[in-house]
Amino acid sequence: MSQAHTEFKLMEEEQLSVELIEAQYALKNTKGEKNAKSLLILVSGIELAGKGESVKQLREWVDPRYLRVKADAPHPFNPKQTLWQPYARFIPAEGQIMVMFGNWYSDLLSTAMHVSKKIDDTMFDNYVEKMRAYEEDLKNNHVDVIKIWFDLSWKSLQKRLDDMEPSEVHWHKLHGLDWRNKKQYDSLQKLRQRFTDDWIMIDCEDETIRDQQFAQHILRALEHCPVHPTSSGITWQAAEIPEVLLNPVSESVNEDDYKAELKKLTKKVADALRLDNRNVSIVFEGMDAAGKGGAIKRIVKKLDPREYEIYTISAPEAFEISRPYLWRFWTKILPEEKINIFDRSWYGRVLVERVEGLISPLEWQRSYDEINRFEKDLNDHQTVVIKFWLAISKDEQELRFKARQETAHKRFKITDEDWRNRSRWDDYLVAAADMLQRTSTEYAPWHIIPSNDKNAARLEILRTILKQLKAE
Amino acid sequence: MSQAHTEFKLMEEEQLSVELIEAQYALKNTKGEKNAKSLLILVSGIELAGKGESVKQLREWVDPRYLRVKADAPHPFNPKQTLWQPYARFIPAEGQIMVMFGNWYSDLLSTAMHVSKKIDDTMFDNYVEKMRAYEEDLKNNHVDVIKIWFDLSWKSLQKRLDDMEPSEVHWHKLHGLDWRNKKQYDSLQKLRQRFTDDWIMIDCEDETIRDQQFAQHILRALEHCPVHPTSSGITWQAAEIPEVLLNPVSESVNEDDYKAELKKLTKKVADALRLDNRNVSIVFEGMDAAGKGGAIKRIVKKLDPREYEIYTISAPEAFEISRPYLWRFWTKILPEEKINIFDRSWYGRVLVERVEGLISPLEWQRSYDEINRFEKDLNDHQTVVIKFWLAISKDEQELRFKARQETAHKRFKITDEDWRNRSRWDDYLVAAADMLQRTSTEYAPWHIIPSNDKNAARLEILRTILKQLKAE
Repeated sequence: MSQAHTEFKLMEEEQLSVELIEAQYALKNTKGEKNAKSLLILVSGIELAGKGESVKQLREWVDPRYLRVKADAPHPFNPKQTLWQPYARFIPAEGQIMVMFGNWYSDLLSTAMHVSKKIDDTMFDNYVEKMRAYEEDLKNNHVDVIKIWFDLSWKSLQKRLDDMEPSEVHWHKLHGLDWRNKKQYDSLQKLRQRFTDDWIMIDCEDETIRDQQFAQHILRALEHCPVHPTSSGITWQAAEIPEVLLNPVSESVNEDDYKAELKKLTKKVADALRLDNRNVSIVFEGMDAAGKGGAIKRIVKKLDPREYEIYTISAPEAFEISRPYLWRFWTKILPEEKINIFDRSWYGRVLVERVEGLISPLEWQRSYDEINRFEKDLNDHQTVVIKFWLAISKDEQELRFKARQETAHKRFKITDEDWRNRSRWDDYLVAAADMLQRTSTEYAPWHIIPSNDKNAARLEILRTILKQLKAE
Repeated sequence: MSQAHTEFKLMEEEQLSVELIEAQYALKNTKGEKNAKSLLILVSGIELAGKGESVKQLREWVDPRYLRVKADAPHPFNPKQTLWQPYARFIPAEGQIMVMFGNWYSDLLSTAMHVSKKIDDTMFDNYVEKMRAYEEDLKNNHVDVIKIWFDLSWKSLQKRLDDMEPSEVHWHKLHGLDWRNKKQYDSLQKLRQRFTDDWIMIDCEDETIRDQQFAQHILRALEHCPVHPTSSGITWQAAEIPEVLLNPVSESVNEDDYKAELKKLTKKVADALRLDNRNVSIVFEGMDAAGKGGAIKRIVKKLDPREYEIYTISAPEAFEISRPYLWRFWTKILPEEKINIFDRSWYGRVLVERVEGLISPLEWQRSYDEINRFEKDLNDHQTVVIKFWLAISKDEQELRFKARQETAHKRFKITDEDWRNRSRWDDYLVAAADMLQRTSTEYAPWHIIPSNDKNAARLEILRTILKQLKAE
């Protein structure tokens, strides 16, 4: 996105307002439609440049009911928190506009400016790269992002500081740096230049021009019609189906050995999870009746429910559907939650959503990278991601379905949907094979567990958790 | 609710499971129906009594997809936080079941047990009374609440401590008191007796009985059919309509005086809001076009958007409708948010919802007390609630509607709905009069502002804010 200084012309206020409101209503009406989008506006800049004033002026020109403003003081870096985590729950739903000042860039700047937690240039650039990738994922999932930097020269800043009311001084001090310090000003400017090349720059010497530039850029962004292509144009290279998925057998264990080993392992796993300083997210995927619930039960055997959270993931609700598909997981995996277990997960995107045709080929094809980035971010911020595919054979599934139907308190586990899914067994195999190949990474490898023998599978899962926790 | 020890019989596990699952499904199907309810289960008790084990066992008997468990370490009291605030967002929606261990009672106990923040018996009882009132409000708004105390004798507790694995000792120490200290145990028992008379008591000497009692009590609660009466049976005593609502005139100010005074007052208000150590919530209600937006603009004139949040309240979304009507405000007014401004508010309950017949007479009649309790809780926890009713005459409204229709960028403010509301002017007047009378309290008084003259109204609002902030 390049600047358009040369094109800039003041508009009649009334005209600007009418066009903004019309664009807002048009955006609002895209909700749930093919051209759906939301707009996220990241605002940062030099203190006293007038970000706040411009936002207030914008609020007067638009219909304020459909513009949300989220303004936070910077969040100091938390090693267990990805840069986007503090903001994830404010990502706008389709049809919404969100102005975020206070965002991942201001956190990065404010952390980098504090000498005590030195961030060198390489790390800084690495953070920027990650944030851009995150924004790209947002855009691909219907959240348009524009970034606006409010700039102010050193001289004007000093003049504004001179003219400030005492009570404002107090407030600005709380939230900013020492803006009287030329060295700090210069290093901030130098730092922000490492990321502002894809930002809209607003020169804030003149207030009227500033407010109009801000509003006009937003107007243009609102009017921008996103195209959501449905095909990538490339021929999809399906992965080969791993042998273990077709023939998921393992050596069986006798009941006595199983019990003894289980007792030992559940205790070891509880200890390992407890004593690890990192957070842990354990993901279970697999065909219906593959044994996900039973495995989870053994993992938490020696834990207290206050130590973990189990999420059973089914179809998203309306307010989740109108946001990026990872959003409901962004907002669940939190720095303060030590152990999360997912009975099905974000992989629904490339399994059920793909197989049932709920999304376009381009969408599921793009999801592998998005998911990998998500897990990499978690891994980089001290969350271990342990993923299990429980593999059973089609015959074994049938046996289990029938057994469930014959047991009164297990009957609820079998629904028409399960039989329908079963009829798509081969499609699910194909989808699973692609998923296993494309999202098995060094930082979050898939563990395929042959699960025709329940007991053997459970022991294997517990051992694998121990292995991954120690290996890293 | 009294105990039913004498009736207790062990059930066949299979039978218990089937009945629990059926009851879960029945509950789920009440969503959006006349008999809608959700179930909130508060769990507390003596450490090692086996709360966690019972919850895990319950999870195996029920369909775990429809049972959420929220388990937190106690939240230390924060003077700006009401007791229910940390838990508000986990209040279950219609059709849902939520087990909360970690709840307002465990916070109260853990705070009271720490000598450094001494809570005397009167304060303690006062807290309990407030929590019970909150639970009553939940029940009246379709959230059934049951409270279960897991008890364990001193002797058994010591034995279980002796038998504990070292890694468990570590974990229990983090979250509990010193359970080897008889004096602490005794004072905890004494304290909890101040509130457990309406709790279900579970004796935890025997694990099987414990798990079954827990599950059976939940089964009974699930099967309990709430009756949602629609009439209170009493004849409603309508309030007299205050003269100022019928004739909302005030002395007008000339433009020069207005400008000078406005400049002075906006600065004073910004300073007062900033320097006050409490949080502030400012509520605007009034007929359409009464000037709410314009007044808000003046309040924030000298503030930076990072210092406040403006909520424009319209009809609730689906996920909000399936929870108590105050829920969306419980989750918005947070200890860390210094200044909240509401352009319309929770009073929609006794205005639009009443006038449009969206709720039963009993519901709106009960809401006044619920709202008063809500505001009292906020006030008791350092949030000042400042409420404005902007009064205009029906003729003045017509003038403003027409002016809006003639101004391009204001036209969006006028919709068919506004004209429809206008046709119900008298009904709204009656509702407003009741509201003003019944929810004007010492801790959160209504300020009725004659607003036919916009400028005079704005100055009056600013002055009133200063007055209420200083007065308290």
